[in-house]
Amino acid sequence: MLLADIGNTHFHISNGSEVEHLSYEEAIRKYSRERLCYISVKQQLDSTIAEIALWKNISAEIQLDGAYETMGVDRKALCLSHEDGVFVDAGSAITVDVMQEGRYRGGFILPGLKAMLQAYKAISPALVTELNEEISLARLPATTKDGISYGIIASIKALIEKHSEGKKLYFTGGDGKFLSGFFRDSIYDEMLVFDGMRKVIKGSEIC
Amino acid sequence: MLLADIGNTHFHISNGSEVEHLSYEEAIRKYSRERLCYISVKQQLDSTIAEIALWKNISAEIQLDGAYETMGVDRKALCLSHEDGVFVDAGSAITVDVMQEGRYRGGFILPGLKAMLQAYKAISPALVTELNEEISLARLPATTKDGISYGIIASIKALIEKHSEGKKLYFTGGDGKFLSGFFRDSIYDEMLVFDGMRKVIKGSEIC
Repeated sequence: MLLADIGNTHFHISNGSEVEHLSYEEAIRKYSRERLCYISVKQQLDSTIAEIALWKNISAEIQLDGAYETMGVDRKALCLSHEDGVFVDAGSAITVDVMQEGRYRGGFILPGLKAMLQAYKAISPALVTELNEEISLARLPATTKDGISYGIIASIKALIEKHSEGKKLYFTGGDGKFLSGFFRDSIYDEMLVFDGMRKVIKGSEIC
Repeated sequence: MLLADIGNTHFHISNGSEVEHLSYEEAIRKYSRERLCYISVKQQLDSTIAEIALWKNISAEIQLDGAYETMGVDRKALCLSHEDGVFVDAGSAITVDVMQEGRYRGGFILPGLKAMLQAYKAISPALVTELNEEISLARLPATTKDGISYGIIASIKALIEKHSEGKKLYFTGGDGKFLSGFFRDSIYDEMLVFDGMRKVIKGSEIC
């Protein structure tokens, strides 16, 4: 069974062992003749995709105890992957959600790494830079590039650490692997959202 | 003696007891016939302002021990206001700088509150919101608006707190008063940059 997580910029498709990241067009071209269950945060796409007979939207089935009404379905699926932990999805936005004893306890949203760099760029030409991916968080920076890279990564890290004391810390998403490298004992797993979807599907007649 | 701090968006002018925030045009119209010393981070403006005979650019005189070459002159002046402390200038960008025993120890840059809200907006229409200025940082949020407001303010707070242990924490800038409200024992003072400028001028023939 193919599962898809349709995000703001890409399709993420899992066949159970691997995850493919495709553009909308590529995904439709490649998989429209196969059975596939999907969740989607992209409302504009729904009518196009709804016409594909073999694809089924299971977004409404993704129920998370304690979740709020407008919470993205991908965040709910991610949180369903484990009963306890802090779940970070680092994509175009970075969502951070806390689960405890199978119940959603709340969470927050940060701009993604690219969006942060764009935010500096929009303030002043003097703040246009790329991320220094090797930035050390052990000492205060002393250049503009490092001051920006530090600002982005250390602020994300400081807030996530505040919420992950004593809890397992899970990362997923396009920048998840990179970001997880700044945290001790963190787990990066690109399957987490699909794990959550599979838990909902398992033993049911949904898919 | 009038002092001016020319930022990315506004003129900030001090007469010694009050600070006025003016557009470039307003500032030139109102004060071009008075003696004034200024610092400026706005290079494009320099030729216009250089023609005003009674105005003097003292940016080159603002020397800060330990500062890096491209560090904004307003940040240097801010740091010169005290020998020790953490200095937050919350404007279009938020700069955070650490001084110890009269020497600059490094610092970092975050996007300002407006730039952060714009960053979310650029990611998805679902993330367009205003800041909830009454946001509680004591509990995890459970709505998109609060998740964004919390993400912005709690990430700034978490990182600044990490660097201000045992140090005095000073705020200035347009959002400085608002942000300082989230910190215990912090000092908000819109005069800090001018205090730094005055220290440089005092007893010299610069102005």
